[in-house]
Amino acid sequence: MNKEASNGRIPVGILGATGMVGQEFVSFLQDHPWFDLTWLGASDRSAGKHYHEATAWRLGGETPAYVRDIVVSESKPEGAPKLVFSAMDASVATEIEQAFAAAGHIIVSNSRNHRMDADVPLLVPEINADHLKLIAAQQKGRGWKGQIVTNPNCSTIVLVMALAALKKFGIKRVVVTTMQAISGAGYPGVPSMDINANVIPFIGGEEEKMQQETQKILGDFSGSAVELLPAKVSAHCNRVPVVDGHTITVSIEFGKKPSEAELLAAWRAFRGVPQEKALPSAPPCPVIYMHEKDRPQPRRDVERENGMAVFVGRLRHCPVLDWKFVALGHNTVRGAAGAAVLNAEIMKAKGYLDR
Amino acid sequence: MNKEASNGRIPVGILGATGMVGQEFVSFLQDHPWFDLTWLGASDRSAGKHYHEATAWRLGGETPAYVRDIVVSESKPEGAPKLVFSAMDASVATEIEQAFAAAGHIIVSNSRNHRMDADVPLLVPEINADHLKLIAAQQKGRGWKGQIVTNPNCSTIVLVMALAALKKFGIKRVVVTTMQAISGAGYPGVPSMDINANVIPFIGGEEEKMQQETQKILGDFSGSAVELLPAKVSAHCNRVPVVDGHTITVSIEFGKKPSEAELLAAWRAFRGVPQEKALPSAPPCPVIYMHEKDRPQPRRDVERENGMAVFVGRLRHCPVLDWKFVALGHNTVRGAAGAAVLNAEIMKAKGYLDR
Amino acid sequence: MNKEASNGRIPVGILGATGMVGQEFVSFLQDHPWFDLTWLGASDRSAGKHYHEATAWRLGGETPAYVRDIVVSESKPEGAPKLVFSAMDASVATEIEQAFAAAGHIIVSNSRNHRMDADVPLLVPEINADHLKLIAAQQKGRGWKGQIVTNPNCSTIVLVMALAALKKFGIKRVVVTTMQAISGAGYPGVPSMDINANVIPFIGGEEEKMQQETQKILGDFSGSAVELLPAKVSAHCNRVPVVDGHTITVSIEFGKKPSEAELLAAWRAFRGVPQEKALPSAPPCPVIYMHEKDRPQPRRDVERENGMAVFVGRLRHCPVLDWKFVALGHNTVRGAAGAAVLNAEIMKAKGYLDR
Amino acid sequence: MNKEASNGRIPVGILGATGMVGQEFVSFLQDHPWFDLTWLGASDRSAGKHYHEATAWRLGGETPAYVRDIVVSESKPEGAPKLVFSAMDASVATEIEQAFAAAGHIIVSNSRNHRMDADVPLLVPEINADHLKLIAAQQKGRGWKGQIVTNPNCSTIVLVMALAALKKFGIKRVVVTTMQAISGAGYPGVPSMDINANVIPFIGGEEEKMQQETQKILGDFSGSAVELLPAKVSAHCNRVPVVDGHTITVSIEFGKKPSEAELLAAWRAFRGVPQEKALPSAPPCPVIYMHEKDRPQPRRDVERENGMAVFVGRLRHCPVLDWKFVALGHNTVRGAAGAAVLNAEIMKAKGYLDR
Repeated sequence: MNKEASNGRIPVGILGATGMVGQEFVSFLQDHPWFDLTWLGASDRSAGKHYHEATAWRLGGETPAYVRDIVVSESKPEGAPKLVFSAMDASVATEIEQAFAAAGHIIVSNSRNHRMDADVPLLVPEINADHLKLIAAQQKGRGWKGQIVTNPNCSTIVLVMALAALKKFGIKRVVVTTMQAISGAGYPGVPSMDINANVIPFIGGEEEKMQQETQKILGDFSGSAVELLPAKVSAHCNRVPVVDGHTITVSIEFGKKPSEAELLAAWRAFRGVPQEKALPSAPPCPVIYMHEKDRPQPRRDVERENGMAVFVGRLRHCPVLDWKFVALGHNTVRGAAGAAVLNAEIMKAKGYLDR
Repeated sequence: MNKEASNGRIPVGILGATGMVGQEFVSFLQDHPWFDLTWLGASDRSAGKHYHEATAWRLGGETPAYVRDIVVSESKPEGAPKLVFSAMDASVATEIEQAFAAAGHIIVSNSRNHRMDADVPLLVPEINADHLKLIAAQQKGRGWKGQIVTNPNCSTIVLVMALAALKKFGIKRVVVTTMQAISGAGYPGVPSMDINANVIPFIGGEEEKMQQETQKILGDFSGSAVELLPAKVSAHCNRVPVVDGHTITVSIEFGKKPSEAELLAAWRAFRGVPQEKALPSAPPCPVIYMHEKDRPQPRRDVERENGMAVFVGRLRHCPVLDWKFVALGHNTVRGAAGAAVLNAEIMKAKGYLDR
Repeated sequence: MNKEASNGRIPVGILGATGMVGQEFVSFLQDHPWFDLTWLGASDRSAGKHYHEATAWRLGGETPAYVRDIVVSESKPEGAPKLVFSAMDASVATEIEQAFAAAGHIIVSNSRNHRMDADVPLLVPEINADHLKLIAAQQKGRGWKGQIVTNPNCSTIVLVMALAALKKFGIKRVVVTTMQAISGAGYPGVPSMDINANVIPFIGGEEEKMQQETQKILGDFSGSAVELLPAKVSAHCNRVPVVDGHTITVSIEFGKKPSEAELLAAWRAFRGVPQEKALPSAPPCPVIYMHEKDRPQPRRDVERENGMAVFVGRLRHCPVLDWKFVALGHNTVRGAAGAAVLNAEIMKAKGYLDR
Repeated sequence: MNKEASNGRIPVGILGATGMVGQEFVSFLQDHPWFDLTWLGASDRSAGKHYHEATAWRLGGETPAYVRDIVVSESKPEGAPKLVFSAMDASVATEIEQAFAAAGHIIVSNSRNHRMDADVPLLVPEINADHLKLIAAQQKGRGWKGQIVTNPNCSTIVLVMALAALKKFGIKRVVVTTMQAISGAGYPGVPSMDINANVIPFIGGEEEKMQQETQKILGDFSGSAVELLPAKVSAHCNRVPVVDGHTITVSIEFGKKPSEAELLAAWRAFRGVPQEKALPSAPPCPVIYMHEKDRPQPRRDVERENGMAVFVGRLRHCPVLDWKFVALGHNTVRGAAGAAVLNAEIMKAKGYLDR
C-alpha cells in the first residue's frame, strides 16, 4: 500500500529510499509535523516489496514501524507525491531527478549532481533563503513545471554555517582541514581495514566541493543569478574513525579586522529565516559557541539540538591569517537528511510548494 | 647490578627509565651497535628494584630481557655513565638534567624544558647539525663541563622534516593541522572515554611548541646564536584515535615560487649529515614521498624505515597559499626516543661525546 | 542554593554527584515525573561550589541546566533529602552510606559494597521485588531508621535479565563471556593506550561479582532471607573498545529441557512488577528478542528503550550445555543510574519511601 | 616475466595472489630460505599485468619489490611450479585446486573447501603431522598425481594450538567465545559502519568450522583415516574492532582431572615436529603462557614470534566445567599464510614435495 497523508499533513516521498541516506530521511521524517512520508521509491529490484523487506536497516534499532509496510515504488513520477526528497546515488540521480522535475514534482535533493548548476539553489535556509528565487529562471529555462533544490555536501555545510555570521567582516581567505566521520561515506562505505585506528588523508572530490560550494552558498543573489563570494577556500579532507560528525579546523582572513568580541557576538546573534519562522526542524540557535577549551567534540556534541546546529569553539588568533577556530556538524543530519527537510520547510513557509 | 658496557660499546643511561618514553628508549636501544644501555634512573620509589619489577611494561610483548635485571638507580649523577638520555616528565626534568650537566654528563633530552633556551641545540641531525656549536656557549655561560641537547616535540618533528628540503624556496607562511596519535600523550595519557570514536580538538601547549620550535630548528646558526627562521607558522592540534603516528596537513607559502617538480625533487634529494655518515639509526631517505592518492596513512606506514623517516604525499596547489600536502611521522620513534638516539649518534660522529 | 522540590515531586539527592556515575544519575533524573533532584553531595573539595564548577562534565553536551547552579553539599546527612542515590566509589561508600541509613535516609546505592550483605536487597525490580522484604530485618538488625538497597554490577544485570524468564526451566549451569564497554570503568577509567584497537581479557573482581550476584538476584525470598539459586555460573570478563553497552555470550544448561519455542515464549511473556505498575522508568518489555542473525549490537541497540531493556538474540543449540544466545544491556543506564532509579520507583510504588 | 627460482630454493606459486590473503602470502614468503616465490596466479582480469599493477596493496608499506614486476598468470596449471599455495576465495577454489592437483601440483590451501574431506589432511604441523599419511589414499582415491593439504580456519587454529598439549588429559567438552579481528574478513571485508566502536555477535559459518575442524585436527590417524576426537565443542563467534589477532575465552572439561601445575607444564613442554626439525617458520615455543593478569592482548602480543606462536593466559578454575583460560593467535599469519607455509615446510622436511 501507499499510505494516504494523514492529519492534513503534506504527503512526501523519498527517491533512493532503501540506501543509507534514504534511511536517514526515513528516520528524520518520523513524526514530522508538516510532512507525511507516504511514498518510497527505489530501484526496480526493490520495487513491489514492503520497505522492511527491501531494506537492510543500518541505523540504530529496527526499521521504523511507520514505514515498515509501505510498498516500495519504482523511481518514476507516476503516483509519487508532489514533494519528493532525493537520496539517490549521484551515479543515477541526474536523469531521474530531471524526469520528476519535468513532470511537475518538487525535488529537494541531497545529491551533488545539480548543486553547482547556475539555476539551481544550493540552499542553506539560515544563509541564503533568497537563492530560492533562482527557481523562476530554472523553470523557465528548462521548461519545467517542477523544480530542483539542493543542499550542500556534508563537510561544506559545517564550514558555511560557521562562516555565515562572519560574512559581514569580509571573508578573504580560508584554510580548512576536515576530520570526517565514516557515516559520510554511506554503506558499505569505508572498509574497516582502511580506517580502524587509522586516518585516510583523502576523500574523492570532497576538497573541490568545499572550495566551490562555499563560494556559491555565501554568494549574493543579484536579481537573476548568484554571484559567487570572491573568497578563496583551500580544503584538506581526511577520514577519521568517528561514527557521526565532521570536525573542521579553520584559519580565516578578513577584509575588515574584527575583534574576538565581534566574532563571538556575530555567532551569538546569528539567526536566519528558519529561526524567525520557527520552522519545525530549525535549531533555535543555528551556531553554538562552546567555551570549554577542548570542545566541540563529535562523539559528545554531535547529537545535540537534534543534530541541526553547528558547534564552534577555540576561537584564537592565527599567526598566518587572522583568526582560527574549530567547528563541528552532524554530517548525516545537518549535512544530509535534516538539511533537505529544512529546505522543504522553508519552501513551504515561503509558498514554493504551492506553485 | 649495573651492567658493564660490552663489546667496546659506549655505556649509556636513561633518566625516567620506567615511564612510557623511558620504555621507548629501552626498546629503541636494544641491539644498538654503538650504545650499551647499562644504567636506568628513575624516582626513589623505583630505585633499588630490578627494572622489570619497577616497570609496568606498556609496549608490545614483555620487558626486553637485556634490561630485565638491571637495578634501577636514583636520578643522581653518581655512578651514571657520561651519556644519559632523558625521558623525564617536564615537571621534574629541569633540575635533574641541569644537575647531571653540571656534573659533566651529556644529557640528550626528549623533555621540552630546555628546547627553547638560546644556548641549547634543538637538534634534528638532518637539518641543523651545526646547531651543536651552541654547546660551547652553553658550557661557558653555565659553567658546565657537561651539556644538554634536545630534540623537538613529536608533532614539530613531522613538520620540520617535511619543510627542511623546502627551506631554499623561502618559506613564508605555514598553516598546519595535526591529527595526533594517543601514544603521544604517554601513559595513562588520554582516557578512552575521551578519545574512543572521537576527536579532541585540543592538546595543551602543542600549538605553541609547533609554532616556536619550527622557527628555531629551521633557523641559521650565525656563529654565536641561532637566528630564528622568519616564517609564520599557525598550528591546529587535534587528537584522533590512532595508536602511533602523527598525521599533519600543511598549506605553505614560499618567497620563491617553486614548481611541483622542484618540490618533489627537493624532497627526493634531501639528505643530511646522518645519511652522509651512515649513522646507525639514520634512515637512508629521511623524507619519502608516496605517490598513491590516499597515502601516507599512520597505521599502514608508520612502522616503515624503523619509524625514522617522514612520509609525505598529496602535493597539490593550495588556493590560499601556494602548495599543500600531507605528512606523517612516528611520534614515539622519530618524535622521541629515536630522535634522541640519532642526536647522540651525530654527537658521537662529530666528537662531542669525547669533550 | 539547594533547590526546593517542585510540582509535588519527591526531593532526592545524589552522593558522589560529581563523578561519572553521579553524572549519569543527573542525566537520568532530568525531567523525572516523581523525583526532583535538589541535593548533590560530593567530597569536601567540591562542597560549596556550584555543581557546574565542581564538575568536569564527561557525558554528551553540557552540564544540564537544571543542576548547574545547585551548591554541592558535603557528604553528610544533615540537610539531605530522605531519598538519596549513592554513586560513590566503593572505596568510600561503606561508611558514608551507613551513616545516612543510620540517620534515617533511604540509600539506593549503585556501589558494590553492600550488595552481598545478607540483609540488603540486591534488587532488580522485574525479578525480585519481594527481596525488598529484607529491609525489615536490615532495620531491625542494624538498628537503622533508614535503609540501604542496591542494584547489581553492570554486567550481572545483563545476565540476570536474560535469565529471569528462564528460571522456571531449572537453570543448572551457565558459562558467560562478556565484551564490556569502556564506560563501565568510569573516568578516567581505561587508558586509551590499553584499549584502542585492543581487547583486555581481564576486569578486576568482575567475574566473581557475576558469579555471586546472579545467585542472589535469582534466589528466592524464604520469608526471612534470600536463598541463593543453586546454579553454577562461570564468567569470562573482557573489555572491548565500545563506548556503551555490555555484550555477553551465554551457554546454559537447564534441569527441564525447554524447546526453542518455549524459551522464546518465556522471554516474550516476561513482565515484572515495574511493567504491571507502569513505573516511569520501566521499559514496556524488559527483554526484547531480536530475530536478525547478527543482533543485538551495542552501538546500534544500546540506546533503544531509553537504555532500560535488555536485548537477546541468536538463540541456538549448544553442543556442550543445552542452549546458547547473546545478550546486550546498557551498562551505565540499566547497569547503574537507571537501575537505581527504577529501584526507587518500585520502593515508592510499594510504600517503602514512606516508612 | 616469471622469475626463475634462485639460490637453489624451491620455486613456489600463489593462487589468488592479488587478494588480501594472497598479499599475506607474498608478505610472509619474502626472504624465505627454502621457497622462492616465482609465480602469481589470479583471475583473468589480472593475468598479464605486473603484480603491482594488478594489485591494490592493502598491507603496510608498499608492494614488496621482489614481486612487483612478476607478470600475473591465469589460474591454470600450465607453467605453474609444482608447489602452489592457494589463497583463493572459497567460491572459486574447489574446481581450480582440483585441476591443479589432478595435473600433479601440490596445493597447500588456506581455503575452507576441502578441509573436512576425509582424505585431505587438515594439517597443524605441531599437532597432527601424521595426518599427512592421508595423502596416499587421497591420490589413490582421486587418481591424482598431485595432492591437496589444508590448514584450519583462523579461529580454530587458536583453539587447537591451546588444546593440543592438553589432549592427554582427556578433553571432554569445550565452550569457546571468540573476539575476532577485522582482518579475518579480508578486504573490503567488514564495513566500518558495522564495526566501529561496536561488536558484531555473528560470523557466518565460523562456529560450525570451529566445532568440526577441532575434532578432526585433534583426531588420531588410525592407519587409514582420521578418527574425530570425541570431544564436544561449542563456539560463540564475535567480531570486535581489533586489526589483527583473534582472542578466545575457553572453558574446558577433562576426563582426567589435571592440576593447574600439570596444565602449565603441558603447555611449557609442548613441542611438535616443526620444533624438532627447526623448520624455518616454526616458533621455538608454539604455545607461550603469559603470567600477567591481563594478558595476552591482541594489539600488544599478536606480532611476537613472527605471529606464529599462540599465547595463553589467565588459567583458573571454571565453576561450570573444570578450567578456563584465554588464548590469542595471529589470524592472518598463524591462521592463514604462515600456517600454510609451515605446512609446506613440514611436507618438504618429510619428503612429500618429492613425490
